[in-house]
Amino acid sequence: MNNLLFWITPVASIAALGFAFMFFRNMLKSSEGTETMRTIAQHVRVGAMAYLKQQYKVVAVFFVIIFLVFAYLAYGLHLQNKWVPFAFITGGFFSGLAGFFGMKTATYASARVANAARESLDEGLKLAFRSGAVMGLVVVGLALLDISVWFLVLNKFVVTDSPQEKLAIITTTMLTFGMGASLQALFARVGGGIFTKAADVGADLVGKVEASIPEDDPRNAATIADNVGDNVGDVAGMGADLYESYCGSILATAALGAAAYAQGDPEIQYKAVIAPMIIAGLGTLLSIAGVYIVRTKPGARQRELMSSLGRAINFSSILIVVASFFLLRALGLPNWAGIWGAIVTGLVTGIVIGKATEYYTSHEFKPTRSIAESGKTGPATVIISGMGVGFISTVIPVLAVVVGTTLAYGFASGNWQFSSSSMSQGLYGIGIAAVGMLSTLGLTLATDAYGPIADNAGGNAEMSGLGPEVRARTDALDALGNTTAATGKGFAIGSAALTALALLASYIEELKIGLIHLMDKGTAFTFPNGIELTTQEAIRNLDLMTFMDYFEVTLMNPKVLIGIFLGSMMAFLFCGLTMNAVGRAAQKMVEEVRRQFREIEGILTGKAEPDYARCVEISTVGAQQEMILPSTIAVLVPVIVGVIFGVPGVFGLLAGGLATGFVLAVFMANSGGAWDNAKKYVEEGHLGGKGGDTHKATVIGDTVGDPFKDTSGPSLNILIKLMSMVSIVMAGVTVAYSVF
Amino acid sequence: MNNLLFWITPVASIAALGFAFMFFRNMLKSSEGTETMRTIAQHVRVGAMAYLKQQYKVVAVFFVIIFLVFAYLAYGLHLQNKWVPFAFITGGFFSGLAGFFGMKTATYASARVANAARESLDEGLKLAFRSGAVMGLVVVGLALLDISVWFLVLNKFVVTDSPQEKLAIITTTMLTFGMGASLQALFARVGGGIFTKAADVGADLVGKVEASIPEDDPRNAATIADNVGDNVGDVAGMGADLYESYCGSILATAALGAAAYAQGDPEIQYKAVIAPMIIAGLGTLLSIAGVYIVRTKPGARQRELMSSLGRAINFSSILIVVASFFLLRALGLPNWAGIWGAIVTGLVTGIVIGKATEYYTSHEFKPTRSIAESGKTGPATVIISGMGVGFISTVIPVLAVVVGTTLAYGFASGNWQFSSSSMSQGLYGIGIAAVGMLSTLGLTLATDAYGPIADNAGGNAEMSGLGPEVRARTDALDALGNTTAATGKGFAIGSAALTALALLASYIEELKIGLIHLMDKGTAFTFPNGIELTTQEAIRNLDLMTFMDYFEVTLMNPKVLIGIFLGSMMAFLFCGLTMNAVGRAAQKMVEEVRRQFREIEGILTGKAEPDYARCVEISTVGAQQEMILPSTIAVLVPVIVGVIFGVPGVFGLLAGGLATGFVLAVFMANSGGAWDNAKKYVEEGHLGGKGGDTHKATVIGDTVGDPFKDTSGPSLNILIKLMSMVSIVMAGVTVAYSVF
Repeated sequence: MNNLLFWITPVASIAALGFAFMFFRNMLKSSEGTETMRTIAQHVRVGAMAYLKQQYKVVAVFFVIIFLVFAYLAYGLHLQNKWVPFAFITGGFFSGLAGFFGMKTATYASARVANAARESLDEGLKLAFRSGAVMGLVVVGLALLDISVWFLVLNKFVVTDSPQEKLAIITTTMLTFGMGASLQALFARVGGGIFTKAADVGADLVGKVEASIPEDDPRNAATIADNVGDNVGDVAGMGADLYESYCGSILATAALGAAAYAQGDPEIQYKAVIAPMIIAGLGTLLSIAGVYIVRTKPGARQRELMSSLGRAINFSSILIVVASFFLLRALGLPNWAGIWGAIVTGLVTGIVIGKATEYYTSHEFKPTRSIAESGKTGPATVIISGMGVGFISTVIPVLAVVVGTTLAYGFASGNWQFSSSSMSQGLYGIGIAAVGMLSTLGLTLATDAYGPIADNAGGNAEMSGLGPEVRARTDALDALGNTTAATGKGFAIGSAALTALALLASYIEELKIGLIHLMDKGTAFTFPNGIELTTQEAIRNLDLMTFMDYFEVTLMNPKVLIGIFLGSMMAFLFCGLTMNAVGRAAQKMVEEVRRQFREIEGILTGKAEPDYARCVEISTVGAQQEMILPSTIAVLVPVIVGVIFGVPGVFGLLAGGLATGFVLAVFMANSGGAWDNAKKYVEEGHLGGKGGDTHKATVIGDTVGDPFKDTSGPSLNILIKLMSMVSIVMAGVTVAYSVF
Repeated sequence: MNNLLFWITPVASIAALGFAFMFFRNMLKSSEGTETMRTIAQHVRVGAMAYLKQQYKVVAVFFVIIFLVFAYLAYGLHLQNKWVPFAFITGGFFSGLAGFFGMKTATYASARVANAARESLDEGLKLAFRSGAVMGLVVVGLALLDISVWFLVLNKFVVTDSPQEKLAIITTTMLTFGMGASLQALFARVGGGIFTKAADVGADLVGKVEASIPEDDPRNAATIADNVGDNVGDVAGMGADLYESYCGSILATAALGAAAYAQGDPEIQYKAVIAPMIIAGLGTLLSIAGVYIVRTKPGARQRELMSSLGRAINFSSILIVVASFFLLRALGLPNWAGIWGAIVTGLVTGIVIGKATEYYTSHEFKPTRSIAESGKTGPATVIISGMGVGFISTVIPVLAVVVGTTLAYGFASGNWQFSSSSMSQGLYGIGIAAVGMLSTLGLTLATDAYGPIADNAGGNAEMSGLGPEVRARTDALDALGNTTAATGKGFAIGSAALTALALLASYIEELKIGLIHLMDKGTAFTFPNGIELTTQEAIRNLDLMTFMDYFEVTLMNPKVLIGIFLGSMMAFLFCGLTMNAVGRAAQKMVEEVRRQFREIEGILTGKAEPDYARCVEISTVGAQQEMILPSTIAVLVPVIVGVIFGVPGVFGLLAGGLATGFVLAVFMANSGGAWDNAKKYVEEGHLGGKGGDTHKATVIGDTVGDPFKDTSGPSLNILIKLMSMVSIVMAGVTVAYSVF
């Protein structure tokens, strides 16, 4: 089995990595500015790398334990494929590598961007954006590399009787490397999120509120930690999150493709499997082209820069729509036009969610301004109205996902009655929509990663005492970054939801493989409804709906209802644990900064330097300690529910966790973003401006919003994907235990 | 068909109403105190009645419209039973009547309780509690009356071929009067919740924060509105909420009983139908006995009073466990012991949820104290840690519901494998557990309603300038009321969850009746999976699981997944709308109080009286305007989802709304309660005490918590029940439209 079009994927991977390396080299060539600038950048760099090193140590322990468990399941109990433990490890390793490169780039770039901003706004933007592009391209490049290599390796080494079964085994095995990526992402998001907000909240509480010194003031011991946090949370965390969505959506769709076209021509099945891969490859090539579009005439103003960024994204999106049309036609899947429709649906869904996020969180629009207005009656009303806005802001994203799912399913299956006969084609369509949404990830992630780089450049400029005109330019860059960061968050959530839906669907395929493994050991399998299947063939031929019926995964089964309750609870519990973690770690930070003000003489007069490293250490230790409990829960609960309540319980858990987690994540991200920008709106001189009572009220809103938008909210993206991933990988165990 | 034991229900109903009348008469006999006290009580009474009148006007419009729609569906399209429109109306009418009586009693009692407190703490408690008991007994008395009368009437007039079908029709018809109760409860909870918190937040913001005058100060124009709000929200709202749960659980269980025992001896089916009714009747009789236990020696201290209250509840709970054992044995249902196990499970689940609520919201325990502690670093950390506590506090209630559901299902079905064969017995068990939890409602509601009466007595004492020793006594009464109110809220949420689960199960029965109606018109029915049934007999004989399979209500059906997403969203949207409503209405209140301070000379010196009535009017108008949108959405969305996504969509909507709504409601109630008590903890002299910075920070937390615990959270109880009720009543329309 072979198809030339497949090679788009490895080629795109190499290209992405090559361009990333080039952008990185070019960035290194530009000057880091004055001595002070270099020193500060060095502080941040050292702190960030120290954090990453510490985090990878903790992660390594988890990975080794789980690797051993998987090895035992595969080689000892024969409940799993022998490739699984290794697929799991590489997923985690590549994700970690992408985070490492992205953060290295970001920490090298910040001082250079600040220095470029001394020259002009345009130079600053270009350098910041190209540095962000390194992150974007490294993420997609490594993901496609991992996917291509495993696909080629498994294609060579997996031996089966029928080509259809071979593809089923290959795709379901590859899916498990998504779990490695997922686990890595969990630590990056949760640990990074706790780090960054403990530092940020701690710095703000003592600096702005108590000592009345401005943000990023070098006299505040927590400022370096705050800047490290931007890299740790927003660069490495966001990158790992989207790396996981990217891999997850491609791999789940490949598995769904193998299942949907399992009956019939093996060549068509093969095409369905590689379709998500080559679409992702195509999108990556177009993303690289898009990066080059972000260039402006010398002396361009901010509005032009913004539209330049927008133009690049629009260009890539339109091109992927056109190019994928011809690509799918060339590939020649049956109903290729419907599949193309699903891709377009996914792209549009992403855009709608992004626009809705912008509407609810930008102070150009009414919701955020009404929050600022409510600051006139104090912080309580700021919190109440911010929560109100956040709650209501969930409507459009949910409707977008609902409509997007319906359309993708309908297009791909060609069956608008949604009847069970063409369900697997429909689910394949949902996966394809997720791939479509994420196809230009290289570019969208570049605009995301641009944000924290610009933010850090601003911090560097402030701390280095660069003139107000430079600070004004970095502020402008930062403001642009805030807009892209907010839409980026919406995009991350939306893609997580679609990816999780695709993963949920592919869980069934893993269950089948699990049952087949079980039968290899000579056991007949009795379904909960009493029907017994004795041959592997019988299981393979079960259609989706019958399979669900045999497992009694209907909504009146109390196990399903219980699972849904538990899934909803998991989302809230996870938020609670991460919120409390930030609260506790921030508390420690506050005490440390206060201690330094008290004990180190001359800090406030600028005569002595605070002990920045100690604050970085406090955030690092806090984040590492605090991430262990939520991470352990996220990994263990799906396993426990599987053992106790079986397959119906797991389905309920995943569906409940997905729905509640998605809505809760949107709420938290948007409330947080809106509070942030309501404060910025006041700072721009409205409603009494900086220093007034309304400003103080909105600062409190912003502080509350910090863990909302940067810790708990984004962590939910991972939770909903990770729980699916764990269930997928443990499917064999679940069926084995619901038997015995 | 007849059974003497049934008569327990009407007898208990008459007894409850008789004792309520007696307590009311006795309360009226005690003195209202000084001239000022009487005047203030008069202000509150007039305000409360004016509000109720206005609310009933709006509600009447809704009821008339829906009545006409139902009449058309029943008489025009023949999609419904001809009794439905009338059942709907009586459910709403009796609920409204209970609210009216309860509020009348509460507003007559407050000054009298304050006056009794001038004599002794004990006298105050007894009077307040007996007045609360009026509410409790009126609610259960009217509910049982409505149920008994309808059951007798329908038993007489419904004519069918088989007795089994007769009971199916009777019970499913009666279920629809639950929708009337549900709609009335929606308005009472949402309108009352908005009223009370607009007044409370408005009064606090201007009074405590801006003018620095204490709570309930007569110079604050919003104080009367605040006291009216306690009656409107906490008495009438809570009463309507639990009236609905009470009716809903009994009626749903009756319908499930009719279904579970439809095959076989009609007498057993009859017994299964009346079982929930007679258990409720028995519990009511025991509640009356319990009320008499609340008496203490003269000169008793608060701890004794508290334990007296606890003793009464324990007494009734233990007695119902013992008595229902013998009652069920006498009734002689097969597996009566298992059903008794389900009742005990329900009671224990309620107690666990109540205890968990107490742990997370009382400042005797760590969580609330940690919130107070975090006030040392300002309001932002108070909000963050309060949310963290709220999020985590969802775990125990969810686990309680999960374990309770599992046990109730297992006990009643006797099938611990939860296989599909005995599913309808298991679901009947879940309904019975809800009935068990609510069996002593007469008493628990008495302790709930006691809270706002004590609160109002305190307000009256403050405004009338009674001495500090009286105010200290009313404060003690109020503090006791806060504890019972918090556990009462947990109880209301827990019972709403179990009731909604029972309603979800009985939705299937309504679908069957809908299909049978459809066939009356000569149409064969094709299920989504392609199977066609041509006889009513075939539909009647479909077992639950097959029925679900035919409708393809499995978790991989995109319609189900979409429904779950929409259900989760509905919970958040509803919270957002109610939060914003409070924000807007409170804003108007703030402006009005400020205006009065500005324009009416001599208010602050106490020489002129503020215009209290104007503030009551603002809250009334605000509440009425703001409750229309959320109410309309709650009623229409299940209908729209039914029409677009059919039965699978509705199931998803209800399950998603139930799970997310339950968890969200617990979160909001507990965060709000914990903030309230964290403030009280500081006010008791900890962490710098009243007036310090920590106190100010916790006051902000309390203000944010007000709409959490008294508006949005409780409204969710209604939402999850109402959506089920609407779906149940519209089941005929859903199947008709998913056909054409």
